[in-house]
This record gives sequence, structure tokens and C-alpha cells, in this order.
Amino acid sequence: MPAEIGLFALSVAYAIWATSSVLGADAGSLRMQEIAGAVREGAQAYLRRQYTTIGIVGIVIFLLLAYFLGLYVAIGFAIGAILSGAAGFIGMNVSVRANVRTAQAATTSLAGGLELAFKAGAITGLLVAGLALLGVTLYFGFLVHSLKLAPDSRTVVDALVALGFGASLISIFARLGGGIFTKGADVGGDLVGKVEAGIPEDDPRNPATIADNVGDNVGDCAGMAADLFETYAVTAVATMVLAAIFFAKTPILANMMTLPLAIGGICIITSIIGTFFVKLGPSQSIMGALYKGLIATGILSLIGIALVIYYLIGFGKLDGVNYTGMALFECGVVGLVVTALIIWITEYYTGTDYRPVKSIAQASVTGHGTNVIQGLAVSMEATALPAIVIIAGILVTYSLAGLFGIAIATATMLALAGMIVALDAFGPVTDNAGGIAEMAGLPKEVRKSTDALDAVGNTTKAVTKGYAIGSAGLGALVLFAAYNEDLKFFIAGKNAYFQGVNPDFSLNNPYVVVGLLFGGLLPYLFGALGMTAVGRAAGAIVEEVRRQFREKPGIMQGTDKPDYGKAVDLLTRAAIKEMIIPSLLPVLSPIVVYFLMYAIAGGGAAGKSAAFSAVGAMLLGVIVTGLFVAISMTSGGGAWDNAKKYIEDGHFGGKGSDAHKSAVTGDTVGDPYKDTAGPAVNPMIKITNIVALLLLAILAH
Amino acid sequence: MPAEIGLFALSVAYAIWATSSVLGADAGSLRMQEIAGAVREGAQAYLRRQYTTIGIVGIVIFLLLAYFLGLYVAIGFAIGAILSGAAGFIGMNVSVRANVRTAQAATTSLAGGLELAFKAGAITGLLVAGLALLGVTLYFGFLVHSLKLAPDSRTVVDALVALGFGASLISIFARLGGGIFTKGADVGGDLVGKVEAGIPEDDPRNPATIADNVGDNVGDCAGMAADLFETYAVTAVATMVLAAIFFAKTPILANMMTLPLAIGGICIITSIIGTFFVKLGPSQSIMGALYKGLIATGILSLIGIALVIYYLIGFGKLDGVNYTGMALFECGVVGLVVTALIIWITEYYTGTDYRPVKSIAQASVTGHGTNVIQGLAVSMEATALPAIVIIAGILVTYSLAGLFGIAIATATMLALAGMIVALDAFGPVTDNAGGIAEMAGLPKEVRKSTDALDAVGNTTKAVTKGYAIGSAGLGALVLFAAYNEDLKFFIAGKNAYFQGVNPDFSLNNPYVVVGLLFGGLLPYLFGALGMTAVGRAAGAIVEEVRRQFREKPGIMQGTDKPDYGKAVDLLTRAAIKEMIIPSLLPVLSPIVVYFLMYAIAGGGAAGKSAAFSAVGAMLLGVIVTGLFVAISMTSGGGAWDNAKKYIEDGHFGGKGSDAHKSAVTGDTVGDPYKDTAGPAVNPMIKITNIVALLLLAILAH
Repeated sequence: MPAEIGLFALSVAYAIWATSSVLGADAGSLRMQEIAGAVREGAQAYLRRQYTTIGIVGIVIFLLLAYFLGLYVAIGFAIGAILSGAAGFIGMNVSVRANVRTAQAATTSLAGGLELAFKAGAITGLLVAGLALLGVTLYFGFLVHSLKLAPDSRTVVDALVALGFGASLISIFARLGGGIFTKGADVGGDLVGKVEAGIPEDDPRNPATIADNVGDNVGDCAGMAADLFETYAVTAVATMVLAAIFFAKTPILANMMTLPLAIGGICIITSIIGTFFVKLGPSQSIMGALYKGLIATGILSLIGIALVIYYLIGFGKLDGVNYTGMALFECGVVGLVVTALIIWITEYYTGTDYRPVKSIAQASVTGHGTNVIQGLAVSMEATALPAIVIIAGILVTYSLAGLFGIAIATATMLALAGMIVALDAFGPVTDNAGGIAEMAGLPKEVRKSTDALDAVGNTTKAVTKGYAIGSAGLGALVLFAAYNEDLKFFIAGKNAYFQGVNPDFSLNNPYVVVGLLFGGLLPYLFGALGMTAVGRAAGAIVEEVRRQFREKPGIMQGTDKPDYGKAVDLLTRAAIKEMIIPSLLPVLSPIVVYFLMYAIAGGGAAGKSAAFSAVGAMLLGVIVTGLFVAISMTSGGGAWDNAKKYIEDGHFGGKGSDAHKSAVTGDTVGDPYKDTAGPAVNPMIKITNIVALLLLAILAH
Repeated sequence: MPAEIGLFALSVAYAIWATSSVLGADAGSLRMQEIAGAVREGAQAYLRRQYTTIGIVGIVIFLLLAYFLGLYVAIGFAIGAILSGAAGFIGMNVSVRANVRTAQAATTSLAGGLELAFKAGAITGLLVAGLALLGVTLYFGFLVHSLKLAPDSRTVVDALVALGFGASLISIFARLGGGIFTKGADVGGDLVGKVEAGIPEDDPRNPATIADNVGDNVGDCAGMAADLFETYAVTAVATMVLAAIFFAKTPILANMMTLPLAIGGICIITSIIGTFFVKLGPSQSIMGALYKGLIATGILSLIGIALVIYYLIGFGKLDGVNYTGMALFECGVVGLVVTALIIWITEYYTGTDYRPVKSIAQASVTGHGTNVIQGLAVSMEATALPAIVIIAGILVTYSLAGLFGIAIATATMLALAGMIVALDAFGPVTDNAGGIAEMAGLPKEVRKSTDALDAVGNTTKAVTKGYAIGSAGLGALVLFAAYNEDLKFFIAGKNAYFQGVNPDFSLNNPYVVVGLLFGGLLPYLFGALGMTAVGRAAGAIVEEVRRQFREKPGIMQGTDKPDYGKAVDLLTRAAIKEMIIPSLLPVLSPIVVYFLMYAIAGGGAAGKSAAFSAVGAMLLGVIVTGLFVAISMTSGGGAWDNAKKYIEDGHFGGKGSDAHKSAVTGDTVGDPYKDTAGPAVNPMIKITNIVALLLLAILAH
């Protein structure tokens, strides 16, 4: 336990050191600081409003949980929500200060810009991993050591699940709300600015431009931080729950339950070391510099995980099961390999050097329609290899160490979250830096440096999203197993509600097929709601910008200043309003499906059996379609974005050509795909799972 | 048995009468006949080439089946393939003759055009139902009565499954090949004609215009005919297989096995009567006229099915099971209700009178990007209600009469295929009629009538596709049950290969999860291949048309004639080439998954158990994502098309406005969605299922 606190302290120490080093950098000219100030204010205003809304929802849920499941469970929920929110909040606050400094650093060298932007990303990344580890460890320690509860008691398990739920709640709101905000601003701003008024992206005359930069931070920085905090916490919790079940009554129970935390802890160290490997080499390859850091982290983690397993449980045969510690280490290796493969595949599908992006650029020559057709084809194709990698990961780890092997692989995959979030949070900083450089009228060469950083940011953002959904896919079985084992526990425990319940998860059972289909429809409906919300928000921005141009004709001549705050405000309200209904979808679905199936199957024990089977199948159904919807959207969107960048680099006629116009259309379509609907599918899947687990606990009470 | 032959004779008699009445109509001016002749020749040339390719593949499969499973099974395959091909061939030949006559009839009245076009569609529809019923009935009768085989013997079951496979093979080739042909021509022709050369759609100066009209016939007429022939045959076969299992050794076995055929037969009569109700009322509503026919058929079928059940098995309790004949009748009613709801929902999502299409038209005002975003949102949303209807259908029929109840509902749904295919095959006739009217320079009012018919055709085409995939979703459990029961049969039969095999279809089994994910990826990969193929074919057409414009500058002045045949030829080759790999995907997947999982799970009985579990799960996985992919594509594509039509009707600026240009982009994107990839998912799902069934039979030998 003290080890984890030490590791958390280490990650905080790194964050403090890195923050002071970021804040110590030159913040540029007054004009730059003015612009950055507007972005900062907008982002803070948005986050305040979002957190207020979440706070209200959170208090209601807190009270419900306290009433149904007791105070400790409710406190677990609060811890998850507060820490997840804090990770996003701190990360975003660093990000909105690093942007202007990155722009300023880029005036001297590309390496300087890269260093600052990456350091800012790394702060968010390590805080996510550190806070998640701290939350789970401390609360688990408090319950087990201070309250003397058994590590596998219901209260402990339920409290940890509730911790995951708290994180999930922040995550879906941040992902969806942030996604709607950022893409509403982006799509709306581009439509009215680039297309109607004919002014370039990030032109300071466009009233939506500050909102666009605000959006990058709330969506990609705060949103991603909350999302991966949640995946990290949920996976750690699920692995601990499985350990509690598989190693119950063996002497190694405590050590096995500590294992996922220890793996997470050691990887915080390796991630911190890895950040120092991010250095621009003589080839000036930004992606190469980031990869150096990632590869260093990966190799060191391999060694670290081996040590952890050796000291905690040894490499020999484990008590109570028929596999060895060595097999678990091999599962960890599989987790790292799956991560590497998914990153590599995502880069292939979204990078400008490979066939998919080039094929979209090529298709842009014949028009808007063919650009979109090819983009959709690429987005669908991009799902096949990741799915096969996940399938292979499941098969190999299961054959090595059964279900617990899959859990360890997933936990290892997520142990790298610190480094991976660093890569992602790097994106909005560079994106903003480019915007600030443009608005402050910095020289063209500076913009070239920030553009180069930005293009890499597009790929790393897609890579992180692929990683996030990939880990969810691999973890699907683990979460379903947690549901199933919980159910068995309540049935075996002679709980009154579960008398005579006998769920049948066989595909022969029509309730299972119904559950699969119902789960399958959730990502589609959710995606539709997200896309529509962006369309509506963008439409509102178009109207607002048109109004400002009409009422203040001086804006276009540069004699009058646009009202940036109005656009930020409008989007804030739109995003908060639009995120409510889609967020409720995964929260209510398990509950509605349960009681509906219970009633349809005639109530009683038979009704309960049918309903539990349907809900269980729903958990897998939502993964089966969710995996494909999410990967196709995030990879497809990244590919569209970079196809535009590829044309802007001078291919197929370059900027301003007809091919470029078509590519801008594809980019616009890809925006809500990759930044709103796609990434929000991930927290949606996990909320569905967690609500199902909590439903079991509530029914048992 | 003689009853079914009589019913087939009735459908042939109707077809002959209708054909002579179509052919007897005025074929218009010489110019019109010349154009129609070119379309007819192109369509016949394409079909000849396609059937030659299928023939080669078919002979190989025939020999393989004969070698592995015996001659009777191979003959079943040949019957399915030949009859399915014949339905498409005859239907298309009527269609390419009815188009010009419809255009001519529209010069006098809308009612006249409607009557001719619908009659042509009805010929295809009734031949599909008649030939499918004849094939299954006669071959079943031959095996049981002439060869004295037991109705539930392996040879009979395998032979009927092979009959379904033969139909499937034609269906996937026709759907994909036809889809690539038609949309390659449509997208490519539009890009180079409308966008580059600035000439209207269907302008005779565009060398791709004949190919476009050819494509409508091969894709929507021959393709849909083969597809529904297959669904009809496969569902009838699967229901018969289940009857053979559930009612084995009861005195009502023969009658229960005849039930799906009898329901199909009675609905041929009601469909024929229904066609006479299709009459333009005083409101001049074309959709209303078609609905009158459909509703009449539905109500009459209700009565017919009640009579069939009463005479065949009675309404009382049935031998060997715990449900009544009445319950089966109620399942039939559910099948009709599901059909009605899916039609109504599809019309809501694709019709110009409702929110979804209007929202896409509205989004077109702000540009290409927002049009596509809204279209994608609508396409995803359009999956939710049909999925819920299918879920409800499964739950209700299962609670009424178990698995056999679901089968009867599906069979009833498909019994209406005659009428539904009539609605679909009506589409290409009116589409062609519009093209011919334009090319022959008929007066503007005529074009208005053909346009009105065409707009309704867009909706009916989407409706039919929704119906086809909906029935596949409802039938999913039936096909999975057939697989599962077959497996049990072989295991119980002490077959040497199946010694010790014990498949576990529980969601706890990682092989099941792997199978679900692998099945889930198939529709995505298949869709990607289909979309890319259309993009490539369209690109080739663009090059070809550009070449003709360049080499023969007289074409644009109207002094020189374009070489239509060249474009048709090029597309024929492209379509045949492109359809091979995607078609192999569902054929090879069950085999590859089986042997791969067998090897991974360590071979032996355990390996076989794992592999059979994975393949079974794959069959459901392919439905779970396939249902959503197919519905979103077909409904979304229809909505895009009609959003364009809605704008052309004078909304949001009308023809030539910026909104219209954006809507044309959406329409182009929707083309391969709704006419290539989307509808081809349906046969793909069923081929995966059937190959899995045949794999079992082959392994048992």
C-alpha cells in the first residue's frame, strides 16, 4: 500500500516539476497572451458549467447509491467522480497555458515546441494514471485495513464498482459534452468562415475561432483524461474482483488482488522515464520522437512487470489454479503486443504515408461524393485488423491463464495509459498553438512548425482512441465475467431475491439473442444522437456568426472586434443540453431491459432468469457493435482529416484545388465521427456494464 | 403436393397473362425503341457474362458437393441455383421491355404508367415466389415420395439446405455484381456528366447513361429477385428442418413439414388477387395505390393462413408440443404485423413527407459536410425501431410457440415476398422509363409523371430491402437453431467425427465471444470491399467518358454518337472482377474459423467443441452487426436520395441551388450504401449460415 502512495507521489512530483517547467517558458507577445487568455477563460467557463451540471446529477446518484447500497458504496462513487474530474480539470488547465508557450517556443525551434507540448500532455497523462491508482488503492486499503472488511466482501466489491461508475459518469459527460462543444465550434466555424466568408481557418475575424480552440481542450484533453481514468479504474477493479473470486481462500489472495495495482504502479515509473526519451532526432521526425518515448516505456514496462510478478507471486505454479506466474507475465506481454499492434494499425489507417489516406485524397479528385464514399470504405475496413488483434489477444491469453489471463493482459494494456494519454493530450496543445500562431499573425515558418506538430497530433489522437476502444474490447469478457460471477455469488448466497434464478447465457436462449440485438442497437442510436447534436450545435453557431457579421460589418474589415464570448456561451449551453439524453441511454438501458424482460417472461424466478440472461447478453451486444462503430468512426475521421492535410501538402492540386474542397467536406464529416460520437461509445459501453453490476447489487439488497 | 404444383401453375399463368399484357402495350416511337433496345442489349450482355462466371463457380461447387455429400445434395444445389437465376433472368427480361412501354403509357396518363410498371414488377415477384415454392416442393416430394426417403433423413435435409445454398450463390453474385455495375455507372456517370460536363442526368450525350439504365435492371430487378428467392427458399427449408426435429415420430410430422409450403402457396393466390387492387385513386397517390394492393394481400393472407392451419393441423393442441395450432396462427399474424411495421418505419425514414428526409434537406443548406453528417445520423438512427420490432417479434412468437413459432412468423413474413418483390421490381422499370423519356426528348409533363413514379420507386426499393434484412434478423434464431440441432443430431448419432464433441454456446465461453466478434467484423469488411469496388468502377467510368468526350468532340455538340457499349463492357468486366473476393468472404469464413479454432484449442474433441462453438457464435455475430449495417445503409441511402428529390421539388432553393449541390453529394454517397453494400449484406449473412450447415454435413461424412 505505501508503495502505491509513493508512486502517486512520484507522479505528482513529476507533474509539479513539469508544470513549473511549462509555466516557466516564455508566454509570447501581449497579443498572443490576450488570445490565449480568451481561450483559457472560455475553457474554464465551460468546464465550470459542465461540472455544475454533473455535480447535480452526481449528488442525485450519490444519494440513490447511499440509500440502496450504503454509504461506503456512495463514497466510492464520489471518489471516482471527483478524481476523474480532477484529472481532466488539472490537465486542461495545464493545456490552456501550454498552448501559447508552445506557439512561442515554435518561433525558435521545432524541438522546443515539441518538448513543451509533449510535457504538457505528459502532465495530464501521469495525473490520470496516478490519480486512478491512488483512488483505487487508497479506498481499497481503507476498506480492508481500516474497516477490516474482507477484500472479497460485497461492500468492498460494490464500493470499487461504484468508484468506476463515478469515473464513468464524468467520462461520458466530458466525452459527449466536450465532443459536441468542440465539433459544433469546428464544423460551424468552418462552414461560415471558410466556406461562406472565405476567410482561413483560425482567422481572428471569425467569432467562432476562440470557441474552436476552447473545444480542443475540453474535448480532447479533459474528455480523454476522464475517459482513460475510467477505463483504468474499471479494469483495475474488474481484475481485482476476478482475483477475489478465483483466489478466494488461498494464501495469495491479497497479493493477487494487489497485482493489477502493482502493474499500474510500476508502469507509472516506466512512463515517467519514457517521457525523457521523447527527443527530436536528426531526422526531425516528430512521430519518431514520440515513438522513442513509447517504445522506451514499453520495454521498461516489460522488465518492470516481470519484477513485480516475480516478487509478488513468483513465476511458479499458483495456488488454487492450474497456471503459473510465468503464464501471467506472458499475458502481460500479450497486452503490450496488442497495444503496439493497435497503434501500428491505427497509424497505418490514419497516417499520410499509407494507402488508406492516400486513397481518400485520390478519391477527392473526382468530387465530394467519391471522397466521402472512399472515406466510409476506409472507416469500415479499418475495423477488421484491430478486431482480429483483439480476437487473437483473447485466444492467446485465455489459453495461457484463463479469464484471469485476459484480465491481466487488459490491465497491462491500461498500465501504459500514462504515456498514451500524454500522446493524446499533446494534440490539443499543438492544435491550439497553431491557432494562436495564426491569430497573432506570427511568421509563416512558425505556422509550418505548428502545422507539422498538429498533423502528428491527428494521428496520435486517433491512436489513443483506438487504444481506448481496443482495451474495452479485450476487457469485454472480463466485465461480462464480473457480471456473471456476481450473479453466481448472489444465487449461491441464497439471497432472497435470487431464489430459484437460473440464468442461461446460451445462444439458444431467445432472451440472449434479444439481449445481443438490443445491446447492438445502443451504439447506433447513441452515435446517431451524437452526430445530430453536433449538427444542431454547428447550425446554431452558423446563425450566431452570420448575425455578428451582419450587425457588426466592421468585423470583416478588421475595425471591429467579434464577440468571442457569445459563441462560447452559446456552445456551452448547447453542449450541456444535448449531452443529457444520450448519456441517460446507457444508464437506463440495463434497468429498462431488466424489468421489461422480467415482465415479458412472466415474472417470478423464470422472469428473473430470462431478464438476467438478456441483460448479460446486452453487455456483450453493446461491445460487438460498439467496437466496430467506435473504431470505424475514430479511424475514419482521422483518415479524412489527414487526407485533407495530404492534399494541403501539395498533392492532387494542393490547397484551394477542387480536390482540396472535396477533402474539406470529408474532414467536416469526420469531425463528429472522430471527436464526438466515436470516442463517446467507449464510456457508453462501460457505463452499460457498470450499471448492470450495480443493478445486481441493488436487487440483492 | 399437387396443390403446390397447381399454385405454381397459377403463378405462371398470371406471369404469362401479365407478360402478354405488358408486351401488348405500345412500345413508343422509333427513337424510344432504339434507346430501350440499347438498354436491353446491355442488360442481356451483362447477365450472360455474370451467369457464365457463376456457372463456372457453380460447377466447381456442384462437383465438390457431389463428392462430399452425394449426388442428391448436389442436385439440390443445382435446382436452387438454376431456379434462382431463372427468376432473375425472366424478371429482368420483362423489366427491360416494360420500361419503354411505361414511358409511352405515361404520355397519356399517370395511371397507365403505374399499371404497366407495376404489372412488370408483379411478374418478377410472382415468379420468385412461384419458382421458390416449386423448387422446394418438387424436390422434397421427389426425395420423399419417389425415393422413399424419410422426410427427416440426412439426405433430404442436406439436399434442401444445398438448394438454399444454390439460391444464395446466385443471390450474392447478383446483388454484389449488379450493385457494383449499377452504382459504378450511376456514380461515375453523374460525376463526369452532371458535375464536369454540366449536362443533366440521363442526357443521351453521356456515354455512361445507357449503362446506368442497364444497371438499374441488373441490380434492382435481377439482384433483388435472386435475393428474395433465396430468403424464401432458405426460410422454408429451415422451418421444414425444425418441423422434422420437433414433430419427429408424431402422426402430424408430414403435415407440419408441409405447413410452411402451404402458407407460401396460399399467399401466392392472395398476392395475385392483391395486384388487382393496385389502382390509382382520385387522390392520384401512387404510394396509396401500391399500399391498397399490399393491404389487400395482407388481409386476404390472414384469412388464407387461418384456413391452411385449420385444415392442415387444426387450431387445437398439437401432438408432442405444448402449444396449439391457434398459437401458430397468431405467430403468422405477428409475421404480418412485423412486415407492416418495418414497411411503415422504412417509409418514415426514407419518405419525403417526414422529419428524417426533411432534416437532411435542411442540413444541405449549410453545405456538403452537414448534409453528409445528417445523413449518417439518420442512417444510424433508422436502425433502432426496426431492431426493436424484430426483438418484439422474437419475444412474442417465442412465448407463443417456442422456436417453431419464430420460424412460422418468418415463413409468413416471406410468404408475402411475391407482393413485396413486385413493389421493388417496379422501381427499375419506372427509373428506366424516366431515363428513356429524357433521352428520347419526350415532353416535360411526361417526365413529370415518370419522376413521380420514380420517387415512389426509391421508397419501395428501401422498403423491400428493410423487409429482406428484417426477415433475416427474425430468422437468425431459426438458422442458428438449425445449426445447433444439426450438431446435436450428429453428436447423438455417434458419428465418428463427432465423438466426445460438446459445444458450449454460453457467453462465458471465450470461443463464443471470439466467434461473435469475428462474425461482427464480416459485414464491416464486406461493406468496405463493396464500397471500394464501386469507387473503383466509378473511377474507371469517369476515365472512359472523359476519353470519349476528348476523342469525339462531336458528342457534346450532338453531331457524333457516344459509344454506349464500351461503357457497358467496361463495367461488366469491373463488376465481375470485383465481386469475386467479397463473395468468397462468407463462403470461406466458417471453414477458416472452424479449422483455425480447432487448431488453437489444441485439436481433438476439445478443439472440435471449441471450433463448433466459435462457428455457431459467428452465425449470430454476423447477424448482430449485419442487421445494423444493412438497415443503416439501405435506409440512409434512400433518405439521401429523397432529400435531393425534396429539394428538387422546390424546397430550400430548389434545383441548381447550393443546397441542391450538397444534396447531390449525399445522394452519391448513398448510392453504393443503398444499392451495393447494404443489400448485399443480406445474402452474405445467409451464405455464412448455410456454409456452416454444409460444413457440419461434410465433417460428418
